[in-house]
Amino acid sequence: MSLLVIGSVAFDAIDTPFGSTGKIVGGAASYIALATSLLHKHVGLVAVVGEDFDFDFIKSLNNRNVDTTGLQIKKGEKSFFWHGKYHMDMNSRDTLVTELNVLADFDPIIPQNWSNPEYVMLGNLSPQVQLTTLNRLTEKPKLVVLDTMNFWMDIALDDLKAVLTKVDVLTINDEEARQLSGEYSLVKAARVIREMGPQTLIIKKGEHGALLFGENNQTFFCPALPLEDVFDPTGAGDTFAGGFIGFLASAGRTDFEAMKTAIIYGSAMASFCVEQFGTTKLASITKSDLNARLEQFKSLMGYEIID
Amino acid sequence: MSLLVIGSVAFDAIDTPFGSTGKIVGGAASYIALATSLLHKHVGLVAVVGEDFDFDFIKSLNNRNVDTTGLQIKKGEKSFFWHGKYHMDMNSRDTLVTELNVLADFDPIIPQNWSNPEYVMLGNLSPQVQLTTLNRLTEKPKLVVLDTMNFWMDIALDDLKAVLTKVDVLTINDEEARQLSGEYSLVKAARVIREMGPQTLIIKKGEHGALLFGENNQTFFCPALPLEDVFDPTGAGDTFAGGFIGFLASAGRTDFEAMKTAIIYGSAMASFCVEQFGTTKLASITKSDLNARLEQFKSLMGYEIID
Repeated sequence: MSLLVIGSVAFDAIDTPFGSTGKIVGGAASYIALATSLLHKHVGLVAVVGEDFDFDFIKSLNNRNVDTTGLQIKKGEKSFFWHGKYHMDMNSRDTLVTELNVLADFDPIIPQNWSNPEYVMLGNLSPQVQLTTLNRLTEKPKLVVLDTMNFWMDIALDDLKAVLTKVDVLTINDEEARQLSGEYSLVKAARVIREMGPQTLIIKKGEHGALLFGENNQTFFCPALPLEDVFDPTGAGDTFAGGFIGFLASAGRTDFEAMKTAIIYGSAMASFCVEQFGTTKLASITKSDLNARLEQFKSLMGYEIID
Repeated sequence: MSLLVIGSVAFDAIDTPFGSTGKIVGGAASYIALATSLLHKHVGLVAVVGEDFDFDFIKSLNNRNVDTTGLQIKKGEKSFFWHGKYHMDMNSRDTLVTELNVLADFDPIIPQNWSNPEYVMLGNLSPQVQLTTLNRLTEKPKLVVLDTMNFWMDIALDDLKAVLTKVDVLTINDEEARQLSGEYSLVKAARVIREMGPQTLIIKKGEHGALLFGENNQTFFCPALPLEDVFDPTGAGDTFAGGFIGFLASAGRTDFEAMKTAIIYGSAMASFCVEQFGTTKLASITKSDLNARLEQFKSLMGYEIID
């Protein structure tokens, strides 16, 4: 099944209580593409970078069969840059610098051979760009997953609500679910948000796991793997979403039972992501590393993961 | 299997964003006894109250087959009283009033027919009283579970460490696990704490569920049931511990597999506790209410609960 990924491909600089990085590769779509490409071989990327980008990273995506013909490279321009600092609990962070650069006027041009994908992952981006992407597809995809954040709820809520009517699955964190719904209880929040459009809602709770809400009050919970060390949570949510849709695209399924296994894949993928800075660990893992971690989930949850 | 419960039986007054109570029945052992007695019929209580206590509550425990011959009633004295106020997130609270009253010099006298229990639940109390209780038993019990809190880590750490060498299972929350171990990672914290004595550690994370750590790096996670409304978290941790040991005593088991099911029982029990103020809801539920909720856990976790 063809899987189109759109989102930022960018530079990050990250400060944590355990150390700091210089400029390293980041961006939602970088993490998503790495996660999906371990699970699935028919992935296309739509994104934009400046001339300053690290093109070895793009080559590494190509080596993983990610089709990057939809990656625009803007001559004389700079890539999106984010500099953030995490606090001791690793759940809260401050943004120190945001330079939009090429993202400021990103026009998501979709290569012709990617205009009819079966699965679509709309990584965290302006809701208007997410909507434009969907409008440019020639047919309704089998499944559209959208990730977003509080920033867009603050400054572009109407655009976000417009795109939400066109997606199947929304992934946001618990605070964002409360903000979007106006409800404190996550059960009530899920009901309100699912009425906005997405049939399925995933509430990400970081180290506390993730909740999956579907039709007929179906609810499933997936824990985060308890880890020895968390070095850098950056990209964990993107990686989670990538693992989720990557599993579904490889299985060719969109039903709730498959989504249960898909969030376990997402959570397993995210558990690697946070163990080193940036994309390093995620780029290095193999299918067998992932399988070992899926076994840990089985014993942690007692849940039988479908193949 | 005989199950001895020791802890506070007291009055609480509770303020939440959703309302306030006057003086109502509270105390760790009240919640524990209610929870265990739904699951198990051979429960004995050791506690102390003043003449002012609500003796209808004691009668209701007797009606549930709780043997209260170990309950001391101090003439002319007042029961322990706690007044607390919860914040909007229901995870943090301030203590407004604590009146120790009869608890100040509580001497845990164990009735002779309860001096050799097979299961012991040491509810949150001074570690010295917990230790005295264990020293007064004539034989080593099959399983001793201890619940405690940060307050005792602050003022009686040495006593706490002494009693920890004599217990099988410790239940504390995530912040307390970090305080007791000096480790931020809960995986590392569990390793440190298990070296202090208890072979099994349960880390309670409130609305985020609970982690069970046992021998040979065995780890199991049980979510909290996502609820429409949480009215009052008071006693949820005690109820959880009561459901946990109540299941084990009724099954006559102490192995890790049984403990997995036991924390699901604990979590299911706690989900009732928080839905109304105080002990009201917990006192009103039936086995069939509990079974319905255990079914919800099965679909939430995909885990097969053993009978």
